Amino acid sequence: MALIVKKFGGSSVANAERVLHVASIIAEDYKKGNNVVVVVSAQGDTTDDLIEKANEINPDGSSKRELDMLLAAGEQISIALLAMALEKMGLPALSLLGWQAGFETDSHHGIARIKRVNTERIRNEIAKRNIVIVAGFQGINKYDDITTLGRGGSDTSAVAIAAAMKADVCQIYTDVDGVYTADPRKVDNARKMDEITYDEMLELATLGAQVLNNRSVEMAKKYNVELEVLSSLENKPGTIVKETVNMEKTLIRGVAKDTNVACISVVGLADKPGTAFKLFNKLAQFEINVDIILQSVGRDGTKDITFTVPKDMGKTAVEALSSMKDFLKYKDLTIDESVAKISVVGAGMESHPGVASKMFEALFDASINIHMISTSEIKISVLIDSENADRAVKAVHDAFFD
Amino acid sequence: MALIVKKFGGSSVANAERVLHVASIIAEDYKKGNNVVVVVSAQGDTTDDLIEKANEINPDGSSKRELDMLLAAGEQISIALLAMALEKMGLPALSLLGWQAGFETDSHHGIARIKRVNTERIRNEIAKRNIVIVAGFQGINKYDDITTLGRGGSDTSAVAIAAAMKADVCQIYTDVDGVYTADPRKVDNARKMDEITYDEMLELATLGAQVLNNRSVEMAKKYNVELEVLSSLENKPGTIVKETVNMEKTLIRGVAKDTNVACISVVGLADKPGTAFKLFNKLAQFEINVDIILQSVGRDGTKDITFTVPKDMGKTAVEALSSMKDFLKYKDLTIDESVAKISVVGAGMESHPGVASKMFEALFDASINIHMISTSEIKISVLIDSENADRAVKAVHDAFFD
Repeated sequence: MALIVKKFGGSSVANAERVLHVASIIAEDYKKGNNVVVVVSAQGDTTDDLIEKANEINPDGSSKRELDMLLAAGEQISIALLAMALEKMGLPALSLLGWQAGFETDSHHGIARIKRVNTERIRNEIAKRNIVIVAGFQGINKYDDITTLGRGGSDTSAVAIAAAMKADVCQIYTDVDGVYTADPRKVDNARKMDEITYDEMLELATLGAQVLNNRSVEMAKKYNVELEVLSSLENKPGTIVKETVNMEKTLIRGVAKDTNVACISVVGLADKPGTAFKLFNKLAQFEINVDIILQSVGRDGTKDITFTVPKDMGKTAVEALSSMKDFLKYKDLTIDESVAKISVVGAGMESHPGVASKMFEALFDASINIHMISTSEIKISVLIDSENADRAVKAVHDAFFD
Repeated sequence: MALIVKKFGGSSVANAERVLHVASIIAEDYKKGNNVVVVVSAQGDTTDDLIEKANEINPDGSSKRELDMLLAAGEQISIALLAMALEKMGLPALSLLGWQAGFETDSHHGIARIKRVNTERIRNEIAKRNIVIVAGFQGINKYDDITTLGRGGSDTSAVAIAAAMKADVCQIYTDVDGVYTADPRKVDNARKMDEITYDEMLELATLGAQVLNNRSVEMAKKYNVELEVLSSLENKPGTIVKETVNMEKTLIRGVAKDTNVACISVVGLADKPGTAFKLFNKLAQFEINVDIILQSVGRDGTKDITFTVPKDMGKTAVEALSSMKDFLKYKDLTIDESVAKISVVGAGMESHPGVASKMFEALFDASINIHMISTSEIKISVLIDSENADRAVKAVHDAFFD
């Protein structure tokens, strides 16, 4: 008998039919004698519909406290419906809101961090053999106000419960059946991995694989929660995410593409100490994440700094730097939004120096120009023109997996 | 500076435009320096939509605990939107769910009774000059589970807060501008009353005036909360409901019609002790409210019992009695659903014996036959054919008010 935490996203519970299907997945594990805690997101478009209602009232933007109050109603609806579906099957189920399930967070409405999960209520219900359905994405702060965890919050909720309850596994159900070596919709011979490490998953998530939310993987790594990514539509094993995996012969785990990238160039900066610090400090004030950075010395005692930011932060970054023009004394400031970042990830590459050259060779053979390069212990990323992105993923994937 | 509790029903906050209008009503009182606590119901059709979702999942009926969880999301949405509307006007507003506002109830899901309102949070917010928006209709039980108060629950929520906070007045906004001497849509010369007593209002509510929920009036009477019924569409005084009012010359307060009535006749019962007791005990087991009762002795040592029940309970009542046929040994069991109850209500009639005869005379002059009569200290009700109901109201109203 195991304790299993299962998480279902909004599309998995989008309508009555899907809710009933999810209930059947839960029932199967419960009837084997397992204890089951389920975390659910809001149904399909509910969150978007609620945001639309808020915008109708106040197009200038409502307070985050009231937005959290509004949005938290979404999961309240889905947990009740899922509990009803299980009741219909004759199973003892019970829904709990974030605060009822013991989710205590800080007070950063809209992007709250979980401080503690007081699992007493969940434990009591599990002891009575109830299936517990928990509202993901939400909690309360020390003032008893409703908070939400932000993007991917339900994944984080699920991992937090699994960590606090020392669950045997935390299963994240999605519309794909696992983690692939590349996007299977784009690369024909992409392979599903049986296992992957937390660190590899983190790099893949950051790099746009879009299977698991990063915060949830970080938390799983910290508390050593075994994750499984699997499909709610097909009844078969998915990909296990854990601390160490059997590396076998594979050097790399996957090839990821990230097109949410803009490349900003600041040309002809005065080459004096503190310039780069002031520049990036300014961006940090606007909470802009800078990724790859390239600095080159120009002529006439000037230098150029080129860096990438998420595409939706590009405009803000340019405005921030424009406001510093008098201080930075740059000659030119440009932004290129037609770029993409292609990365290979794998814990095995550390001890195999040939990985980078194999990747660059594959891109060269495909006549794809590399603008920037960034490396870490388990990852190599290159910036290329976005029009070549899919071709690049395929070329690199073929080089390593064929 | 006064403390005012305002309650707005679902139709008053049905869409963004109405929410903004309600916000402007609140703003007006707040800007005069008053402290304002607002109780809101779920938007327009939200509750019906949620019930529809539950029926899609489990047409056989879900548990009341999960239904309460589901339905409570409705007010959560409306309170957040109303707080946003006030924020947009630059006013400090804050929404609170039933549990956050301190509503502690018993555990009768779907029809929970308020045990206590712990107003600490509301008081703190009021002290900061915040406008507090409270979700009506909901609370939590001792297990921290969400409960709902049932029909008219938001009125009750508003009165409970007004009682606990010793508010100066509890204003119930509706789509009519007050309490009338008869239904103004049916009786041309119906007059709006400036004042009415709790007892009169209770009789009128019970009798189908449909302005205020009975539980809320009972609670207002118990805690001596001054109520005002007024329109959310027109900016003018409504009707005040309080303990004693200036009776002036009027004997009666209003004429009410109730068409949610069925008349059941049990004919030829054995005339032995305990028959009536057993009969009504059976109906009580099915939670059927019996109103007017008429017992007549028939021939051959038998008797007939005729009584009225709410129309929607008629079928259940007949089935319950059919199942007792062997014991009751009645000859015939009939139900008449084409009846209506017409009542005159007024604290003044106690000391004026002519009221009943004046009412009967008016009906006689209009050639309307009376089937049954029931009287209390402040009310006289008659049962007539429903096809004559509107004519009867007009005739009786004219007799007293013209």
